Amino acid sequence: MANAPVQRMSQLMAKTLRDDPADAEVLSHKLLVRAGYVRRTAAGIWSWLPLGKKVLSNIERIVREEMDAIGAQEVTLPALLPREPYEATGRWDEYGAELFRLQDRKGGDYLLGPTHEEIFTLLVKDQCSSYKDLPVILYQIQNKFRDEARPRAGILRGREFLMKDSYSFDTEDEGLAQSYALHRTAYQRVFERLGLDYRIVAATAGAMGGSKSEEFLAPAEAGEDTFADCPNCDFAANTEAVYQAVKPVDGSAVPAAEEIPTPDTPTIETLAASLGVPASATLKNLLVKVDGEIVAVGVPGDREVDMDKVEEHFGPTATVELVTEEDFAVRPDLVRGYVGPQGLEKVKYIADPRVAPGTAWITGANKDGMHAKNVVAGRDFEVEEYVDVVVVQEGDPCPKCGTGLKLDRAIEIGHIFQLGRKYADALKLDVLGQNGKPVRVTMGSYGIGVSRAVAALAEQTADEKGLCWPAEVAPADVHVVAAGKALQTELALEVSEKLSAAGLRVLVDDRAGVSPGVKFTDAELMGVPKILVAGRRSGEGVVELKDRRTGEREELTVDEALTRLTA
Amino acid sequence: MANAPVQRMSQLMAKTLRDDPADAEVLSHKLLVRAGYVRRTAAGIWSWLPLGKKVLSNIERIVREEMDAIGAQEVTLPALLPREPYEATGRWDEYGAELFRLQDRKGGDYLLGPTHEEIFTLLVKDQCSSYKDLPVILYQIQNKFRDEARPRAGILRGREFLMKDSYSFDTEDEGLAQSYALHRTAYQRVFERLGLDYRIVAATAGAMGGSKSEEFLAPAEAGEDTFADCPNCDFAANTEAVYQAVKPVDGSAVPAAEEIPTPDTPTIETLAASLGVPASATLKNLLVKVDGEIVAVGVPGDREVDMDKVEEHFGPTATVELVTEEDFAVRPDLVRGYVGPQGLEKVKYIADPRVAPGTAWITGANKDGMHAKNVVAGRDFEVEEYVDVVVVQEGDPCPKCGTGLKLDRAIEIGHIFQLGRKYADALKLDVLGQNGKPVRVTMGSYGIGVSRAVAALAEQTADEKGLCWPAEVAPADVHVVAAGKALQTELALEVSEKLSAAGLRVLVDDRAGVSPGVKFTDAELMGVPKILVAGRRSGEGVVELKDRRTGEREELTVDEALTRLTA
Repeated sequence: MANAPVQRMSQLMAKTLRDDPADAEVLSHKLLVRAGYVRRTAAGIWSWLPLGKKVLSNIERIVREEMDAIGAQEVTLPALLPREPYEATGRWDEYGAELFRLQDRKGGDYLLGPTHEEIFTLLVKDQCSSYKDLPVILYQIQNKFRDEARPRAGILRGREFLMKDSYSFDTEDEGLAQSYALHRTAYQRVFERLGLDYRIVAATAGAMGGSKSEEFLAPAEAGEDTFADCPNCDFAANTEAVYQAVKPVDGSAVPAAEEIPTPDTPTIETLAASLGVPASATLKNLLVKVDGEIVAVGVPGDREVDMDKVEEHFGPTATVELVTEEDFAVRPDLVRGYVGPQGLEKVKYIADPRVAPGTAWITGANKDGMHAKNVVAGRDFEVEEYVDVVVVQEGDPCPKCGTGLKLDRAIEIGHIFQLGRKYADALKLDVLGQNGKPVRVTMGSYGIGVSRAVAALAEQTADEKGLCWPAEVAPADVHVVAAGKALQTELALEVSEKLSAAGLRVLVDDRAGVSPGVKFTDAELMGVPKILVAGRRSGEGVVELKDRRTGEREELTVDEALTRLTA
Repeated sequence: MANAPVQRMSQLMAKTLRDDPADAEVLSHKLLVRAGYVRRTAAGIWSWLPLGKKVLSNIERIVREEMDAIGAQEVTLPALLPREPYEATGRWDEYGAELFRLQDRKGGDYLLGPTHEEIFTLLVKDQCSSYKDLPVILYQIQNKFRDEARPRAGILRGREFLMKDSYSFDTEDEGLAQSYALHRTAYQRVFERLGLDYRIVAATAGAMGGSKSEEFLAPAEAGEDTFADCPNCDFAANTEAVYQAVKPVDGSAVPAAEEIPTPDTPTIETLAASLGVPASATLKNLLVKVDGEIVAVGVPGDREVDMDKVEEHFGPTATVELVTEEDFAVRPDLVRGYVGPQGLEKVKYIADPRVAPGTAWITGANKDGMHAKNVVAGRDFEVEEYVDVVVVQEGDPCPKCGTGLKLDRAIEIGHIFQLGRKYADALKLDVLGQNGKPVRVTMGSYGIGVSRAVAALAEQTADEKGLCWPAEVAPADVHVVAAGKALQTELALEVSEKLSAAGLRVLVDDRAGVSPGVKFTDAELMGVPKILVAGRRSGEGVVELKDRRTGEREELTVDEALTRLTA
């Protein structure tokens, strides 16, 4: 391929701004707009200007190379998809308001693909008939659509965004594990090449169904995800995937349970204050309805229930709601504010692992204005199922080593799932096995947020002066600044051509009527790794070479600079 | 970039079919499906399998290189677009049922981009403030969406398809002409590199508005466009853009007009038969309503009116309808079947250039059962405006040299337009001019159908054995066939690795349990330019090299073959 032509700033569509855009909350949003990389077209919908497009294409290329390296085959499926396959797997409804739905001129139902599990499953069903045709990994790099309730944070959470999604198809669980491992390695290589600081953390499968799943997180203040990190061992997990073991204690010495009058204490705060005990000594029982059936969820009084974890526990098709006034009206045995697990009838009782057998609690006595103390799990009430449903807090014990966990914010840049047979079951994807009988196929699904990676990189690498790209993703290798008049511009253009001829990607600030100061500020804002300035000593053929990250600068002859940059 | 890994057929997602798909009407559709390049996902919506994706990417790369070469800057705008800008230019309504419209979760109106004039105009309005910021050419390569009434012909006319669209912005008409000329040259280079047989023909601007416009057409039986081609001079045009000059004749010797009773002759056929004259001696007057006003369109009785041309004449915002029973009811002066231009009142009369001043006609007398003869244009009636509105026929005179035109079918693969200021006017795109006053910007819009070019190439290059790609777009350089057992497979893989190491893109048919005959048939169907067979003489290190197009074959040692292929 021919060398890229020198890009002149005088012609470049990249208007820089001195001030942060009014609606920008996070660093990457501010800087990518200010440096002329992106522009907002509608809420959560972005246009990529030339510099942004170059960064995006660089990331695409790296992702493509690493996917090709694990033997994945690139395809392109449509964005506009028919309803039927998504109906068959239940996702047409499960996706709720996040799915963009539309009709064609004949009234047929379509959607804009949020991910493509269904269509890939059908494609493999069409293409593969025997175990000999598997394993196969297919990928595409394509715009996806999700109607986010609150698109925010610039391109970190858009409604149309560029994603690499891939899907693996195997006949055996071991094959799936291997396809998963291949992706894990490829993702590590991608994020290392991108120069991203990232962590691999355990994740629940979320709305995708299936079993094993990990997330690739880029720690950043602007991140919308929180993950727990053990400072002592290698445990790291999405907070939804942190769990505690059930550790029974000896409760035999606890006196018998006893009711105590506690008027006007319908909340944990009022109760703890009235009794002079910490909230952690009390047992809070949250009532929810799961597909219409009442379930009580017991957690220590100082902890919050994570409704996402509750929903996750009951699965993607269950409807989980808080109980209402009407529910209490038809169940007078449930006394609002004074519910306790002892003697509850027709209510499934699940509890946090901290409510382990033998632990004693102050909890509701199922009578208005009354609580009970010395209520012991396993003696005075039974826990039907232990489920970790509390919101994780900094300092919670590491499930592996017990050390207090750290909580950090991060951006999800990749996600790998062992889906299993959920989609193959729904769409009846079988191949003939070695024994001549049909075998149901098992699948994996894997994603990298390509446009989001641009923002994550911006977040992690920017400094107070602006963007600061790693070399392999930068929109150019060298940003040449003509700091002066005709003499400087002539030298800048001459050097640019030489650098281009040597195979470097060059951006040259040849703008007339723009001061050197503005050009320097723009160069630092735009974040190309090397800045070469044709300034005062241009007449002697001396230029200044500056490293954008370190700020180190040195004066060199043009030849020296060329040698240095092309080494 | 690293060499592409050898692609093994045993793992390739490309199931070949012996029979044409039942719904396939055109050659490219049949072959691209049979050779495993594409699969249908829904009506007019296609998935690109690995081989198809490679061809598509090759074309994309060529288009990108040639666009970069004219200084165009690549961007990526969203596919999901807000209604407002399209409302401002009128296209939200003008596009009719062809536009995919949808609502987001808040009820906001959106569309799936068919082309992006509006969004580019707004982008330039945001980015450019001075004449110094122009000219600029921006392009993107992206999926477009159009809800075709009858998606057919495979990927030739899909509802989601890959397009390169670009837009030029200039302050002066001469600048626009230059941006247009740059595109014309770039397109010529693209189509030449693709190895396409193409013609550049004059086109009307169609629904886009604006002035100068040309189409790039690839002659093919499967094409949906018809163009007129002069066998004598360089005239070539979309049939909608063929026009005739008005050539007045001397009608002074024609006797006075005279009414003649012609009972039961409400059609041209009945009239001509009854009088024993050719249909061409009669004048047919078609009544239409343009924005509610009645207009009569006069054409020779043997010609059909091209309603597209009529609509084009009155412009994209006009509503053109045929008159109805109700219209005749309120206008008793218009006698159905017996309308003539002489003495018509409150009716605008436009006519084909063939109804030139001085020509004499038999036409309706505006009385039931009566016609008139010797009715002379310019003497007995006035033509308010001459407009070429007839359907072009083979043999019509060339507007430039008068030779009879040939009509040919073709696929539209590119289109270049001088839009002018239509969009800039609607969206108020001005920049400051040299004199400090605002200047309205003038635009061009240019498209290449990238996915359609795949089909056009398939149509033009395929032979009875299958696809037959030009080298630069082929999914591989060499298709290596292991025609035998372990010995042949081993040699095939060894040669493949050597070719790959030499920088060639290699597909190797290493499938076990597939006969050499099936492999040969598949290789010819898939259409890679060179086929290298490890067959009977593999033991001696002798292979057969075959040219897919010419069928020429020769036996060579492996080293000779490598030298030949990498030369």
